[in-house]
Amino acid sequence: MNLDAAMAAAIEQSERVKGRTYPNPPVGAVILDRDGEIAGVGATAPTGGPHAEVLALRRAGQRAAGGTAVVTLEPCNHFGRTPPCVDALLDAGIAAVAYAVADPNPAAAGGAARLTAAGVQVTADVLAAEVSGGPLREWLHKQRTGKPHVTWKFAGSVDGRSAAADGSSQWITGEAARADVHRRRAAADAIIVGTGTVFADDPALTARLSDGSLADHQPLRVVVGMREISPDATVLNDDSHTMVIRTRDPHEVLQALADRTDVFLEGGPTLAGAFLRAGAVDRILAYVAPILLGGPVTVIDDVGVTNISQAHRWRFDGMQPVGPDVLLSLSPH
Amino acid sequence: MNLDAAMAAAIEQSERVKGRTYPNPPVGAVILDRDGEIAGVGATAPTGGPHAEVLALRRAGQRAAGGTAVVTLEPCNHFGRTPPCVDALLDAGIAAVAYAVADPNPAAAGGAARLTAAGVQVTADVLAAEVSGGPLREWLHKQRTGKPHVTWKFAGSVDGRSAAADGSSQWITGEAARADVHRRRAAADAIIVGTGTVFADDPALTARLSDGSLADHQPLRVVVGMREISPDATVLNDDSHTMVIRTRDPHEVLQALADRTDVFLEGGPTLAGAFLRAGAVDRILAYVAPILLGGPVTVIDDVGVTNISQAHRWRFDGMQPVGPDVLLSLSPH
Repeated sequence: MNLDAAMAAAIEQSERVKGRTYPNPPVGAVILDRDGEIAGVGATAPTGGPHAEVLALRRAGQRAAGGTAVVTLEPCNHFGRTPPCVDALLDAGIAAVAYAVADPNPAAAGGAARLTAAGVQVTADVLAAEVSGGPLREWLHKQRTGKPHVTWKFAGSVDGRSAAADGSSQWITGEAARADVHRRRAAADAIIVGTGTVFADDPALTARLSDGSLADHQPLRVVVGMREISPDATVLNDDSHTMVIRTRDPHEVLQALADRTDVFLEGGPTLAGAFLRAGAVDRILAYVAPILLGGPVTVIDDVGVTNISQAHRWRFDGMQPVGPDVLLSLSPH
Repeated sequence: MNLDAAMAAAIEQSERVKGRTYPNPPVGAVILDRDGEIAGVGATAPTGGPHAEVLALRRAGQRAAGGTAVVTLEPCNHFGRTPPCVDALLDAGIAAVAYAVADPNPAAAGGAARLTAAGVQVTADVLAAEVSGGPLREWLHKQRTGKPHVTWKFAGSVDGRSAAADGSSQWITGEAARADVHRRRAAADAIIVGTGTVFADDPALTARLSDGSLADHQPLRVVVGMREISPDATVLNDDSHTMVIRTRDPHEVLQALADRTDVFLEGGPTLAGAFLRAGAVDRILAYVAPILLGGPVTVIDDVGVTNISQAHRWRFDGMQPVGPDVLLSLSPH
């Protein structure tokens, strides 16, 4: 197996644990034996548990000696809750290490240099873009900015409406798109909505599996706004934790969520508009249905643009069919 | 070369003449010699000129004998302005014929049956969906319904706006998307706009090449509405013909264009809304830019929908990047 294929397998490992490793990054690792066969795989365990490399080494056992470790993040070189992964790799007799993304954390970095000094052959930047734009995107953003990464998700018609004129919106997008949202919720740390959405839709804001049962991991539910919500609101039920933040200022919201990494913004047009105007959105996921609705209920209202020269400019970094719908992904320009 | 590859070449031929064969269909043909090599290609000549098969046979010369004719439409079996193509194929000693789509025109049909009776091996439905949804889409629609095929094209932001709040809209989409529109205009029979668009934008509605010069073929420009437009309007210049229709009724517009096949609707939200409510749109091409505008200027206003159950339901039949933008294509559900 070549390094790209092994890294793809490591990425797959990391995606399984996304949302459950906080505050550690969701890392995936694959150990190839001397013959290039997969000897063990691993992904970051919940906080305080072993890192991905250690789990993969444990599964590889004796077959790790003389083999290659393929990891989505540069192996760490510091004592945190666990000993440095570099030590574990050297102890196992690994001959080569390939990683996708360098560790931006000064305390943990230096792993590659120490491995090289110990005679291990080190290859950096293997599928780097796939990892930095994929499973490690939010964690890298947090390392760089100190703030959680905010994904604004909306579902709309091809003419940019989120409901018909009478407010009815179930369902604009199909089952596949809704399942995709639940899958992403289960990988997020928090979901933000405005009080308006709570009043209008009384959503549960839980992550559910296709059979309707609750996913293992539930993100924190965050309700933002100045209005008092009813103690009977579904969002306050026992299916997950809920935080109510009395503000309309996106910066205050992110401040309150400073210890989170991956935040999903599902608010209506008012809250999303506030986040966009504040420059507090890091990714847009647009689930676009092949329908036309017309009328007054748009996916977003005011984003502070009067003239085309002031347009919020993004770039498409993905488009894919999701059932009968299309998912467009946008990143900052 | 196998039949699929030869048909792909025939499709390419047909696309070159699209918009210039009216009222004949834009057909492409490829003649393979006994060894399966391309001996000649052809596409429908302008009205009254030879059909695609005849041109391809002429180019193939002696190499056609014992060869295979690959044609996007079943070869015709009737005397129109030209003799039946079936005769030309038999005279040339063609051994096999493959076509994509059967001729729905009763007067011209029967070609396949006559070829089979004459001992020619006939294969139908080669890349049929590519042809019936591609170069022959509009012509087949016209044969089936008696009406021109209407493509509504719009350019909008990802939040469904066609301009900023102050009306400025140059440019929402990039150069590549605008060039794509000009290419499609050059292949259309007519472009419809409302008087509102003439007043607001004073467009030329011509098809231009990337160097800014006029394309060989210019569609008829059609201005629809009750208001009088200025005799100095650019749309009335000498670059192409222009028809002014004093109505707001889409059915009356299509009646006036009954002898056309492929019509491009580029009107603003009012005119497009009227066509959509009248069920007079057969395809939607949405050029979506990775920008957010918000505000009151939506790509479409009222399409007669109050409740989500009344949504106009379509299906995506294509999505592709066009420069920084995305082109979503929709067909009736």
